[in-house]
Parts: sequence; C-alpha cells; structure tokens
Amino acid sequence: MRVGGREMRAVTWTDDGVAYLDQRLLPFEVVTAVARDVAQAVHAIADMGVRGAPAIGVFAGYALAHAARRGEDTEAAYEALLASRPTAINLRHALDAVRCVAPDPSAMLAAARAWDDAEVAAAEAIGRHGLPLVPAGARVLTHCNAGWLAVQDWGTALAPVYRAARAGADPFVWVSETRPRLQGARLTAWELREEGVRHAVVADGACAELMRRGEVDVVLVGADRIAANGDVANKLGTYDKACAARIHGVPLYVAAPRSTIDPACPDGSAIPIEERDGEELRTVAGAPVTPAGTPVWNPAFDVTPAALVAGIVTEVGLVPASSEGVARALREPLSPDGRAR
Amino acid sequence: MRVGGREMRAVTWTDDGVAYLDQRLLPFEVVTAVARDVAQAVHAIADMGVRGAPAIGVFAGYALAHAARRGEDTEAAYEALLASRPTAINLRHALDAVRCVAPDPSAMLAAARAWDDAEVAAAEAIGRHGLPLVPAGARVLTHCNAGWLAVQDWGTALAPVYRAARAGADPFVWVSETRPRLQGARLTAWELREEGVRHAVVADGACAELMRRGEVDVVLVGADRIAANGDVANKLGTYDKACAARIHGVPLYVAAPRSTIDPACPDGSAIPIEERDGEELRTVAGAPVTPAGTPVWNPAFDVTPAALVAGIVTEVGLVPASSEGVARALREPLSPDGRAR
Repeated sequence: MRVGGREMRAVTWTDDGVAYLDQRLLPFEVVTAVARDVAQAVHAIADMGVRGAPAIGVFAGYALAHAARRGEDTEAAYEALLASRPTAINLRHALDAVRCVAPDPSAMLAAARAWDDAEVAAAEAIGRHGLPLVPAGARVLTHCNAGWLAVQDWGTALAPVYRAARAGADPFVWVSETRPRLQGARLTAWELREEGVRHAVVADGACAELMRRGEVDVVLVGADRIAANGDVANKLGTYDKACAARIHGVPLYVAAPRSTIDPACPDGSAIPIEERDGEELRTVAGAPVTPAGTPVWNPAFDVTPAALVAGIVTEVGLVPASSEGVARALREPLSPDGRAR
Repeated sequence: MRVGGREMRAVTWTDDGVAYLDQRLLPFEVVTAVARDVAQAVHAIADMGVRGAPAIGVFAGYALAHAARRGEDTEAAYEALLASRPTAINLRHALDAVRCVAPDPSAMLAAARAWDDAEVAAAEAIGRHGLPLVPAGARVLTHCNAGWLAVQDWGTALAPVYRAARAGADPFVWVSETRPRLQGARLTAWELREEGVRHAVVADGACAELMRRGEVDVVLVGADRIAANGDVANKLGTYDKACAARIHGVPLYVAAPRSTIDPACPDGSAIPIEERDGEELRTVAGAPVTPAGTPVWNPAFDVTPAALVAGIVTEVGLVPASSEGVARALREPLSPDGRAR
C-alpha cells in the first residue's frame, strides 16, 4: 500500500531489527519503530504497536529469526513471543514455520521471509476471491481494522474493498469505531482515506440501526482464529454485528488467510480469549471516562458461531463456515505457479 | 436518591431558576447548575447538561413555568424548549401540561410540580412492577443511563434494580458504556456505585459475547419514545442488544412512564431520530480519536421493533409491546389513592 505516495508495509525486516508502523500512534503520527530484541518485540505485540493477527505472525517470525541471528536462545525467544498474545493463532503458526529450520539463522530468516511473502500473496488472493462480495456501489460494514495495517499488504476484509475501489466500483464503508482501542476510528478510517474509499465512522452500537434502515449490503470482517468447525474469534463486537445481520438477513463474511485456521481447535469454546487491562475501558487517550477504579470486563475478542457466518474468504477461495468448508480450505492446493489462486 | 448521605434529584425548582445536576461533569464533579432563562434551559437540554427523557420533561416544564413568572412570552418559550431535542416525547407532553394552564404563573408552576410529582410516583411504581424481573442474583444488562439522573427519583430501567438491591436480592448489572457520550460508563456506573449495586462496565460491543457465555439473565433499558404499536426509540445501541438478546433467548424489557408513549406515532418509522454533531464521535474528552474531519454518522437513538421487546414496564404495570398493550397502559387508571398502582 502507498501512503502519501510512499510504499509502506505494516511490518518489514531490517538488519537492525523488525520495523513496524507503530499503530498506537496512528493516525496522528506515522512513525516506524524497530524492535531490536525479543523483549521489544514482545512489548510491541502485547501493547499493540503491531496488531492484526496476520501482521503479528509475520512480525513474530522475523523477530524469532532476528533473535537467532543475534545468538539468543531461540527456544526462549519462541516461548516469549508465543506468550505475547493468546488469541491470534497466526502467531503460533508463523513461529512454528521459522523454528522448524532452527538453529541456522539464514534458514530462519528465509523461512520468515517466505512466511511474509505467502501472507502478502494470500491477502492479494483474498481480495480477488472476495471481489464479488463488493459489487458496484456496495455498502460494506466492517469492524476493527482488517486492512493492510493488520495483514500484509492488502488486508483481509478490506482487500476486496480496495480491489473494488480500484476497479471503479465506488464502494462505501461503514466503519465501526471499535472500543476500547478504536482501531476502526483510528486505523480503518485512516487507511480508507489514504486509499480514497468513501466511508463514515459510526459508534459500535449503530450497526443494527444501520441495517434496519437498509444501509448495509454486506458485513466483512477479519479473524484472529477460526476453529475447525468454522466458529470465528474476532475483535469484540463482531458477534453483535453477526446477530444484527442475522435478524436483518444481511450476509456476514469473514476474510482470513489459512494461517488463521486452527484445526486443533474443535470449536469456538476452545479458543482462548484474551482479557486486557481494564484501563483500556476506563480511559480514552489518557482521560478517565468512568469513576476511578470502576469494575470493568475487557475481553479483546468474541466468538461468532459458524451458523451466523455466510462464508469464509481465504486465499484458495470462498468456503462455507463449516467443518467441511474449513477442511476444504486447508487441503486446497495453491495454483501451479505457486501463487494463491 | 442519596449521594454521600445527601438527598439529590436530577432536577429541582428554585425561585432563581431550574436547578439540575450537570450531567456533563459527572462523575468527576458533582455540580448543581441553574438555568435562569429559556436560553439557558434550551442549552442545558441540547448540550445534555440535563438528559434522560423523563428528566428533560420535568426540567422543561419548570423552565416554562419560570419563563411565565419572569413575564416572558410563554408561546415563544414553549417553542424554543420543544425544539431543544426532537426524540424524547416526554418533553412535549410535559410542556403541554404546563402550557394548558397558561398564562397564570402560579397555575403553571403548580402544573409543573404536579408533573414532577407524577413522574416520581411513576418511577417508584415502575420499580415495584419491574421487581419480579430482577430475582435474587439476577444479572441485568443495561444501556445508557435510565437511572435517577434520567428519571426523577428512582429511574426506569434501574428502578427495579435499586428496589431489588434494597430488598437484599444482590443483583449484578452489566453496564454498556454507551458511546459516544458514555452515559453508561460515566453516569450509570456512578449511580450504581453510590447505591452499592455490583456492576461492571463493558464496551458496547461486548453484549452478544456476554450472552453467548450465559452471563445475562435480562436486558432492562429505558425509552425516549414509544410508538402506538410498541416500537421503542432509545439510546443508540439498544437495538443491537435487542438483536443479540433475541438470538440468545434473553428477554429485553423496556421500562418507561406513560409520558414516554406517543399515541400519535403509529410506529417506529414515524419517530424523529436526532442526529448529533459528529465531533461527539471524532473526539473523547476533547482528544481526537479519528483522522481530522473523518466523515461520521451520529444518530442519538435507534428504534427497536416491538417484536423484539418482551414487555414494557409502566407505572400501571407490565404490558406487552403491542398496539393492544400500549393502549391498555394508556387507559389503565391509577389506583384510587392517586398513587400509581
């Protein structure tokens, strides 16, 4: 993706460490930070300097390769990175792909680069496969940020939108602000503006009302983990939208690379849901918004049952949100030229 | 209600003007402001210094009586107050009740006091009629603030909760924070703490996930206008909860005095929905949370169709959310001693 005419990626390898666009500062400051050791990388993930399940995976893969290069204990680095956030399974998958060629630092870097390239190709393919979901003038509702900040280099949920926009389909995106971290208001709104896609930010509670007024044609969201039966963990608030969508007959599609699928998780109840610091809810931009010390419950994700998901857009195509659909996505080969089909 | 041992009301008459607890400053400052003329009263309503449909009605009634006392043009005052916010019908009903005895200032003040007393009695009765919805240990989900700040002197949705708590039923309340103005996080959390009711604030998007986990027994909300067919306009985000509640088989009850019913509105589509300044979404506590000038859509209310409402708790009892139920609520007499039954 290009920002102000400059090519940018959420995560990039440098010899000094793993560079990332610091998503805590966006959209107010566009700053590239560098994680120079494992502790910095873990902090960048846990504190959401880098976020989005696929981007976290790419970042952690590079961080592990970098640890090996510096002669750090790769097992300890693996464990520390894996523990940085519990829900996004891409983290484990990427770390496994890099660790399996340890301890050779060059091989590990090559594996991390291959993982990154595959995620870029997957996002590009998701855009192609999802394009029919965004016909001319489509009004898309999305939640959180599943754009190129979250997924090298096109995004997942936003990849079909960007592709439709470049094809002249003039889509419109309703952006759910996504409390408490406001990834919709801060990041998705910024991405869409940079890409020239029409949009409006709404409160998280505006979605059923939008649907009641007939203002939403399709809901497109990303995922942090997809269970073997098609249940989907994604940013808290996704399931609210899925309920409203079901009541209104609006389809909700999940867009995610296969690295987001966890075949070891039989269903959503087995997905660990991260609970974050309550201060995220008690404050906004440092200012208190509740009485001091108010009890809060602050899970980062929710689980949308497969029955409410119209389909999953992966790099090998659109599959049903079901055991069969997920299994099919996992066994489908990429096209012969090595690109995702 | 008592705060720090002191009896308090959201709105009170004084000879200098209409006093109100300034809800823009709560919970950080407990300040009583006074609207000394119509312009100040209009601003207090429009800027949400005083808010909550029944409280707005009481406040406007007093403000109109005060205008008459000062010799202002009561017709102009009536029109200005009526235009201050468009959705809450209690505003019109209260103003009508005071205007119909114009121009005698004493009669108008007596009418405004009678309106206030009736709303207090209604809230007290709503607490009694709603008590069976909050059995021992009940876990209630509420949205926005429908407590004593919004409705003299017990609240609507919170009236049964307060009554249950005083009866030792130890209820627990999930408080949806209610972006953009955060009435849940700021006001409901404060009220519940002052009253010693267990609670936790959650993001607006947490409600379906709470229900999926079996953590919600009942949803209790207030209303800003109830149409003749039982459709309910209430704070934006209510309808999202109603959709999730329907999917999970959790009942959603609306608690409101009869002054909230608009028999002239055939259904929800006829209810005017206020759209507020986009800066409410673009900023929190003065700090920007979107790129500057991001397009937003900021309706203050949504409409929950009657079919998703399990019942309406009024001062004359629980009625179905239907044309028949609403008509029954309107024609039901109060008990012979003049109190709501």
